[in-house]
Amino acid sequence: MTTASDEPAADPKMSRLLKLAQKFNCFYLNGFMKGDCRPFVVDGHQVGLVSQNVIEQLLKHPEVFHIRAPEHGKQNIVELNPAFRDYSTRSQQVDRILREFREQGMFVALKGWRDECYDVKSSADSLLKMDRSATCLFGVRNYGVEINGYVRHPTKGLCIWLQQRSDTKQTWPGKWDNMVSGGLAVGYGVLETAIKEAAEEASIPGHLIKNLVSAGCVSFFFESERGLFPNTEFVYDLELPEDFVPDNSDGEVQNFQLLPAHECLERVFMPDFKTTSCPVVIDFLIRHGIITPENESNFTQVIELLHVPLQSLYTYRTPNNGAAANNATVAATTNAPDLISSNKNSIENGKL
Amino acid sequence: MTTASDEPAADPKMSRLLKLAQKFNCFYLNGFMKGDCRPFVVDGHQVGLVSQNVIEQLLKHPEVFHIRAPEHGKQNIVELNPAFRDYSTRSQQVDRILREFREQGMFVALKGWRDECYDVKSSADSLLKMDRSATCLFGVRNYGVEINGYVRHPTKGLCIWLQQRSDTKQTWPGKWDNMVSGGLAVGYGVLETAIKEAAEEASIPGHLIKNLVSAGCVSFFFESERGLFPNTEFVYDLELPEDFVPDNSDGEVQNFQLLPAHECLERVFMPDFKTTSCPVVIDFLIRHGIITPENESNFTQVIELLHVPLQSLYTYRTPNNGAAANNATVAATTNAPDLISSNKNSIENGKL
Repeated sequence: MTTASDEPAADPKMSRLLKLAQKFNCFYLNGFMKGDCRPFVVDGHQVGLVSQNVIEQLLKHPEVFHIRAPEHGKQNIVELNPAFRDYSTRSQQVDRILREFREQGMFVALKGWRDECYDVKSSADSLLKMDRSATCLFGVRNYGVEINGYVRHPTKGLCIWLQQRSDTKQTWPGKWDNMVSGGLAVGYGVLETAIKEAAEEASIPGHLIKNLVSAGCVSFFFESERGLFPNTEFVYDLELPEDFVPDNSDGEVQNFQLLPAHECLERVFMPDFKTTSCPVVIDFLIRHGIITPENESNFTQVIELLHVPLQSLYTYRTPNNGAAANNATVAATTNAPDLISSNKNSIENGKL
Repeated sequence: MTTASDEPAADPKMSRLLKLAQKFNCFYLNGFMKGDCRPFVVDGHQVGLVSQNVIEQLLKHPEVFHIRAPEHGKQNIVELNPAFRDYSTRSQQVDRILREFREQGMFVALKGWRDECYDVKSSADSLLKMDRSATCLFGVRNYGVEINGYVRHPTKGLCIWLQQRSDTKQTWPGKWDNMVSGGLAVGYGVLETAIKEAAEEASIPGHLIKNLVSAGCVSFFFESERGLFPNTEFVYDLELPEDFVPDNSDGEVQNFQLLPAHECLERVFMPDFKTTSCPVVIDFLIRHGIITPENESNFTQVIELLHVPLQSLYTYRTPNNGAAANNATVAATTNAPDLISSNKNSIENGKL
């Protein structure tokens, strides 16, 4: 029977897998509620969340970033100057400020400047592009691809290829990671990115990459000292022959290792595994019957934390956004109205 | 570029798969927000949601069901008499009232009385059991298992076995459904239920059932004229040889059919497919590379709606629940604090 002391925060029954799922969702579970971050709005649509230390710097550029109070709210929002009417103007204006920040050594995230852009999108359209190192400063949704390379070994059973990141990588140097992964840069499709990264990171030849199988996506919301990471990773599985060994061709990988599935599960709990790559490994181990309702006490909770409702977190709309102006500070979206309600109430209560 | 008219509710770009995912989440997306349903609380923990027409009848049994206002809220909650201190007493008391309702022909749901019970649980413990036909009256979370039986056909490619439910079944008679499915009754484990149902519904022999692979779970929140269905289905895949044909042995199935994957996808859009079985088929087609980011424009949204955060919807706690009494009308849970905030604000604003 239940007792009054079973408060989940200190639940002794919580599995280590659930604890790990909470770790890569640290912002979703903790930061979002604190209310320190403000909606980042472009063309009337919330596309991100900005923390106070970033807002302090944006305030110095009022020609680009407006800090304004919503009609019925008590707290500010950060808005890209609505006078910038198109993709190109918005991209150039933001890029200019980001390069200033970078020269001033302002943010640790910008030390990893990539000269490769991510799209910043509303639910329907691309609104601007931004260097991929900077999206975490604005809490903009990130999309990437990850490939689970696996072998059905005759004696060891299901085995998974992991890569060890190069010590010279700007993010997570030296950490263990999935066999192949990469961000979705402007102008590249999802499958296209997967095939490109498979060639660059692991030299997967054409006759093997044709076995690539799309297997869904994972979504989570992580926070680090660099910023906010509302990430969605498109997941692919690739069965490989026993005698194939991945070989890096772009200098971003220092090692590959083939691990039996159960050893792979142990590896994700190690501090030398890239935290934000854990969701894809866990999802693979769940889909392939290694993690099951029988051996994982928090099975359904873990699966929920592999698919957090990211698009439902960014529901703020400015009242002057055309047709929605009359009755909607927060417009209806297609799903998770509870979260819409949450945001709306939080904004009105001055929490968000 | 985005325009002011892209309100998602009338989004012409919305795929038919997203529309279907919204259909089997009709309560999650619409009903939950209306605020007509009240928390159902047992031993201080919210375990369900009760609609007004059910509350009207529960009011006639004040010795079992208390309607009470939460300390800081403006609306009622429905509480099982806290004097019932153990599983057995609670189960007997509720069962007695449900049988009265049934004799009076009170609810259409109870016409399907099964003499088979589901557990009603807090996050940690079983609090009582209830006939499975009645859980939808209380919006209690339902757990089931479903098995995707599939064949890698030499010429037709990936094919999936579907069953047509018997015309005499109490729920969804004559509708198309997954090969094998069953609810998690009191006293049965997840894998155990899958194996039992595979034998009863499709006569899967032992040498084939040993290939059963656990593949995750789907969660959604549906509403019908019978009541509320916050369902979590544990999903299994079973590869079958080309020459095996399922054969029903319990009279609950009138037909089995093997469909190529793309025909199976078409079938879920038909009105003669059981709505609440669509999520498992869609999840299977996503995991096996049939539905991909390339051919499904709302890929990430659909996957989100296959994994809605059900446990985050039931966060109400009574203030006198022991250790949590001092500061928590709504206690912290392990995830989705935004939804907790939503519930809390909704209750305090008199919406829920």
